[in-house]
Amino acid sequence: MVATDSTTSTFDAFDPTDPVFALHRGGKMQVAATVPLRDADDLSMSYTPGVARVCEAIAADPDLSHDYTWVSNTVAVITDGTAVLGLGDIGPAASMPVMEGKAVLFKQFGGVDAIPVALATTDVDEIVETIVRMAPTFGGVNLEDISSPRCFEIEERLIERLDIPVFHDDQHGTAVVTLAALINAVRLTDRDMQDLKVVISGAGAAGVAIAKILQSAGVHRISVVDRQGVIHPGRDDLNSVKQWLADQTADWARPGTVGDALEKADVFIGVSGGTIPEEDVARMAPDAIIFAMANPNPEVHPDVAHRYARVVATGRSDFPNQINNVLVFPGIFRGALAVRATAISEGMKLAAAHAIAELVGDDLSESYVIPSPFDPRVADVVSRAVTETARREGLARRPY
Amino acid sequence: MVATDSTTSTFDAFDPTDPVFALHRGGKMQVAATVPLRDADDLSMSYTPGVARVCEAIAADPDLSHDYTWVSNTVAVITDGTAVLGLGDIGPAASMPVMEGKAVLFKQFGGVDAIPVALATTDVDEIVETIVRMAPTFGGVNLEDISSPRCFEIEERLIERLDIPVFHDDQHGTAVVTLAALINAVRLTDRDMQDLKVVISGAGAAGVAIAKILQSAGVHRISVVDRQGVIHPGRDDLNSVKQWLADQTADWARPGTVGDALEKADVFIGVSGGTIPEEDVARMAPDAIIFAMANPNPEVHPDVAHRYARVVATGRSDFPNQINNVLVFPGIFRGALAVRATAISEGMKLAAAHAIAELVGDDLSESYVIPSPFDPRVADVVSRAVTETARREGLARRPY
Repeated sequence: MVATDSTTSTFDAFDPTDPVFALHRGGKMQVAATVPLRDADDLSMSYTPGVARVCEAIAADPDLSHDYTWVSNTVAVITDGTAVLGLGDIGPAASMPVMEGKAVLFKQFGGVDAIPVALATTDVDEIVETIVRMAPTFGGVNLEDISSPRCFEIEERLIERLDIPVFHDDQHGTAVVTLAALINAVRLTDRDMQDLKVVISGAGAAGVAIAKILQSAGVHRISVVDRQGVIHPGRDDLNSVKQWLADQTADWARPGTVGDALEKADVFIGVSGGTIPEEDVARMAPDAIIFAMANPNPEVHPDVAHRYARVVATGRSDFPNQINNVLVFPGIFRGALAVRATAISEGMKLAAAHAIAELVGDDLSESYVIPSPFDPRVADVVSRAVTETARREGLARRPY
Repeated sequence: MVATDSTTSTFDAFDPTDPVFALHRGGKMQVAATVPLRDADDLSMSYTPGVARVCEAIAADPDLSHDYTWVSNTVAVITDGTAVLGLGDIGPAASMPVMEGKAVLFKQFGGVDAIPVALATTDVDEIVETIVRMAPTFGGVNLEDISSPRCFEIEERLIERLDIPVFHDDQHGTAVVTLAALINAVRLTDRDMQDLKVVISGAGAAGVAIAKILQSAGVHRISVVDRQGVIHPGRDDLNSVKQWLADQTADWARPGTVGDALEKADVFIGVSGGTIPEEDVARMAPDAIIFAMANPNPEVHPDVAHRYARVVATGRSDFPNQINNVLVFPGIFRGALAVRATAISEGMKLAAAHAIAELVGDDLSESYVIPSPFDPRVADVVSRAVTETARREGLARRPY
């Protein structure tokens, strides 16, 4: 789900009769041995004395750890609990149910063994150092629910320090799946990326990453809006990443409200959690595309959106066109781990988006621009797109 | 196994036809979901939007994380790779096969979900800070294969900083299982703890912890020897922990060689990896007790030991009386986690040793002073001993 999820504002606190609590009792995951441990012979193979031969071999050639430990298929799902769903800074303990949920999705959809890690620090330096020190334990790092703009610096510094894939899903998972849906919406409405006028509502992790990937995909006319209106270089209230956004979009974006930005816009992408007034939606171009991804309350309700738009997508499972990053992260990491990629490149993300979009094929329609989260083909094609791109870009350390 | 394991000195490096390598391919463990993820309804319960209700409840009452996440049943098996088996400082990557092995033993014998963590630092401050920051992720910390004397300071500081159980298995697992075997050997030979003359060979993690637990169990006459002979206050080559040992044993220990110390000794406990000459073994008291626990080469070979001793135990599975800490750590943590113990106390360790010893019961004989590692009753009785002691000592945060 996208980082704008604000689900629980409407819920009461702990209700032990809620079936969700019964389901979560004891957590949602476990570890299991993949080797037999029936007798002393088994023990002497899996543990001492046999295991020492494997240790010795890895000490002589550290690369062998990827063949003879579970590191090769393991991702840490790491948070500091500062931006959990729409709940905000609820701390590491309260973030664990989400990290576990993410971990089981990694396994279910990608076959990747993921370990939830919740850190008791919100200091950027400490988070970076802690993850670097833990890194021999994992084949990849999935950052999760870390507040903006800290998340950008943490990701950037980890990418610099580590030679394993680092991926902030709230940014890039959301960006990839949004681009996948947009590729198909653009095809359906017979548009061209180069000519699109796009408004992104929300300048947090998701909004920034969507702006970046759309630019990589050839979109030039992007306005990003926050609560104060369109982000542009003339504003004096911008943090570092909004300043970056202002510079990146300066050729197109003009000062104004979200309504001003929506004037003749082809695409609205909501990752903000706010609500867009209907009269603003009405200003969009004919055959508009509206991705209102806030959960559970989309920025534009689908009933309203359909009055003005031809393609409507949300983050919710109870409307058509659910934009859900579970379509992305399991396959991205499965592919990256399979070839021991040194990083998740922009090229891999674009290739993943195209692979997801292509699955829709000839079934493309207003109510089907993106595959279902349960489409079993998705992780396979995403993984293949990632491995092929990794090889092409020289980021693969082993053949698939 | 004890920290003195020096198995691999005799092995060649990587041999891919070795069946041990085939067994270790891809690692020895995986994670698995314990909740269904078949459709959108499942997803909305285990993940968004449902999971947010669980997060919110924990944010309001952090104690609920123990009921509604897997933290309650999870132990981190943490190393810095500095003292792995008998291989020494082979680094974090090469230590992972042992950490995974330990993790699967935790699950198999204790039903505890254990996560291997190998740290890319050997700095004591950094190790402590890293583990403290990761702590919200786990219900307990099992330190493993960290070199002496650093291991003592790391454990001590973590116990001070954390309110979850911290247990250095190379120390305390070995100490508890050794005491269990000794309780029965003493009973069999009709001795009394108060009168025992004990020689411990090895002053690393295991030797220190064994000396401590024997003192708690009423043994007063202890000599600890290292390569330079008996440790006593007159020596000027002692590190901090050997100095502590010298002070603790000053009333009894006299300067001399291991042979001198063995003169009329009742018990020899080897956790050193060296070899004791037969003429020194011959100096022991009649009906001696010899625990030669180095792996794969006991300090005294059982064939030699039997010439002078009535009870002989080793760390090996191919001789009677295998002293193996797999009898200890799974049940210790299962019990500690069950009552959310704030620490593993000396009382819990003693109770665990007695519970293991009692399982032997009327079957006690020279070749059966300690249960088999595969005796399915062991983890149960150890866990019960720990929970009962935790309650009695006021260290239990929840009823069992």
